[in-house]
Amino acid sequence: MENFTFRCATKTIFGRETEKQVGQEVKHFSSKILLHYGSEHIKRTGLYQTVVDSLNEAGVSFIELSGVVPNPRVSLVRKGIELCRKNGIDFILAVGGGSVIDSSKSISAGVPYDGDVWDFYIGKAKPQNLLPVGVVLTIPASGSEQSDSNVITNDDGQIKGAFGHPDMRPVFCILNPELTFTLPSFQTACGCMDIMAHTMERYFTNSKDNSFTDRLCEATLKTIIYNLPIALAEPENYDARSQIMWAGTIAHNDLVGTGRIGDWANHIIEHEISGLYDIAHGSGLAITFPAWMKYIYKHDLSRFTQFAVRVLEVEMNFENPERTALEGIRRFEAILHEASLKTTLSGVGIVDDRFEEMASRCTENGSNTVGQFVKLTKQDIINIFNIAR
Amino acid sequence: MENFTFRCATKTIFGRETEKQVGQEVKHFSSKILLHYGSEHIKRTGLYQTVVDSLNEAGVSFIELSGVVPNPRVSLVRKGIELCRKNGIDFILAVGGGSVIDSSKSISAGVPYDGDVWDFYIGKAKPQNLLPVGVVLTIPASGSEQSDSNVITNDDGQIKGAFGHPDMRPVFCILNPELTFTLPSFQTACGCMDIMAHTMERYFTNSKDNSFTDRLCEATLKTIIYNLPIALAEPENYDARSQIMWAGTIAHNDLVGTGRIGDWANHIIEHEISGLYDIAHGSGLAITFPAWMKYIYKHDLSRFTQFAVRVLEVEMNFENPERTALEGIRRFEAILHEASLKTTLSGVGIVDDRFEEMASRCTENGSNTVGQFVKLTKQDIINIFNIAR
Repeated sequence: MENFTFRCATKTIFGRETEKQVGQEVKHFSSKILLHYGSEHIKRTGLYQTVVDSLNEAGVSFIELSGVVPNPRVSLVRKGIELCRKNGIDFILAVGGGSVIDSSKSISAGVPYDGDVWDFYIGKAKPQNLLPVGVVLTIPASGSEQSDSNVITNDDGQIKGAFGHPDMRPVFCILNPELTFTLPSFQTACGCMDIMAHTMERYFTNSKDNSFTDRLCEATLKTIIYNLPIALAEPENYDARSQIMWAGTIAHNDLVGTGRIGDWANHIIEHEISGLYDIAHGSGLAITFPAWMKYIYKHDLSRFTQFAVRVLEVEMNFENPERTALEGIRRFEAILHEASLKTTLSGVGIVDDRFEEMASRCTENGSNTVGQFVKLTKQDIINIFNIAR
Repeated sequence: MENFTFRCATKTIFGRETEKQVGQEVKHFSSKILLHYGSEHIKRTGLYQTVVDSLNEAGVSFIELSGVVPNPRVSLVRKGIELCRKNGIDFILAVGGGSVIDSSKSISAGVPYDGDVWDFYIGKAKPQNLLPVGVVLTIPASGSEQSDSNVITNDDGQIKGAFGHPDMRPVFCILNPELTFTLPSFQTACGCMDIMAHTMERYFTNSKDNSFTDRLCEATLKTIIYNLPIALAEPENYDARSQIMWAGTIAHNDLVGTGRIGDWANHIIEHEISGLYDIAHGSGLAITFPAWMKYIYKHDLSRFTQFAVRVLEVEMNFENPERTALEGIRRFEAILHEASLKTTLSGVGIVDDRFEEMASRCTENGSNTVGQFVKLTKQDIINIFNIAR
């Protein structure tokens, strides 16, 4: 077990109709805020009006900035920073999913900084005095509602940048599972894949003797695997939506990574795919993870066997543990298929002409490796792309 | 699943030698503190000197107050309050286990309050502006290092009082499993019983459709059940001590109770026993829990069957689930016996002459019930004492 420091001070407000409390919660921090969201969708569902009513009731005034897109762009972040500065705003309320939250976090870091916000993503500067961010979550997936990091895409949509800061965790997140009833099946499935990915990036580790964290990971993975088919079959099943939403938050606030070094190869590789092809992050992860598992499982057979037995409920083959491990990977992929996720690049229309380019980009022209569980070279990544072909 | 609010801002600093960081951590809050601990034991182990060196190095001055006893007394709390006031102290550092932390929390609430601190325990006043408390933990058991509550015993040692406050959670807790290497077997076992009790008080609930929290509870219970025998056989096994320590913290910071109503009958009943007989809290819980389980398991057979199958790894008897549930209770009691804990009142020298008195006291002369999973009457509690005889 590795030494660790863990602190997540985000206040979770969970349950039916909790979005009505947003004004009261914001009021502890500010009376003039940026209300940041994606599309007009939240107006159609009534969420926008509920939030506005709650803010008004609490005497909180706001400036609006909508237009956040999946793989959120730095151009809108810059616009948000200007808006906050011009209007003396010191709090950002994100109403939406991971893209809106990440865009809000980026604005919160950029407002007090003199230079351009992209400096944080290229390591040229470190953020200080971040503005507080609050969240009303509509998509369980990114875990950004309690995480200390964000991912933003540059203007031409082809490069993703990320950075973190301990003060970046939102001060509160409001989680009402009812708000996820209208999520289309594809987004529900992509979200669940993202949640499982956050857990598995921490589960597949070389850090030993850390069985409590293993069990927390397994609890999270089993919760998603059990509830995803229910949520797809019954979109308004409150209980299934609840379990997914709460597990999605815990999966990425670092609790399930305590005492261990995470891997993150799949996130890094996937960011190249979704950066280049603008597919959903969860959809990309559903492609990379099975291929990565098939490519590296022999690195630690006992870990993949444990994954198979404890998470996928494969009966242990004591004579041939490798069969157990492989059956676990097969079942994992089958779960993705049952959720109508594609697990091949060709399945989402990506052909093989840019494998080399993507592998090159995430390894800095082959001079670096990617991941910790197995350190993948550029050629390894090309091999994984070929498995996922 | 019930609506809930959850916030635990305590910073966890976990691992080998982390107690050397205590000065730096304290310094964020204060430069003059109360150093609160139990006996000279921490001087013999060297922990006292490490803490003092770290405080000195960080330029933090301190006043000492030792003498905290198990089932900590309000008289010492009053002394601590006076010391803090007289010396203008605004931070309390607890070095010890649950008793020291609870005593510190009580002092932290009492310093800014005009009246007597016992007022908080009898509901006569509510605390405000609590002083921050930091913790160097030496006994994994109480979970007080991240909980928002405390339990104090009155001067004659026969009445326990408790209260909580959201600002009562310590600002940091330093968890070095090495500090628990010297814990005697009995204290190790009592601590593990307490940790399991905190989890089970939340596991046995009437709140439905909350499977993620169930799985977090099960992860915690399995971690203790697996690691307790290892820690008893090999007291210096860092990995076993680590899992117990971290699970002990998570078991009582409310995460494993999110979305559900806890029971707490066993804690209430046990407080009567340890209040009257001054036995260790964990030892008392090892007596009440098996008896309580045998008395009430039919209230929700499926829950006890789940407990048996998932936590105690009993094979499900589909034709006769009751046998599965009963085998789970039997195995749970066997685990306590293997850890040399007594599971009867007579085993710890308590005879039956005060069953009525204790049952009466925790039900306010029979006018109230105790617990939420099953609401126990005075007669129910006497019946449970008789099962535990």
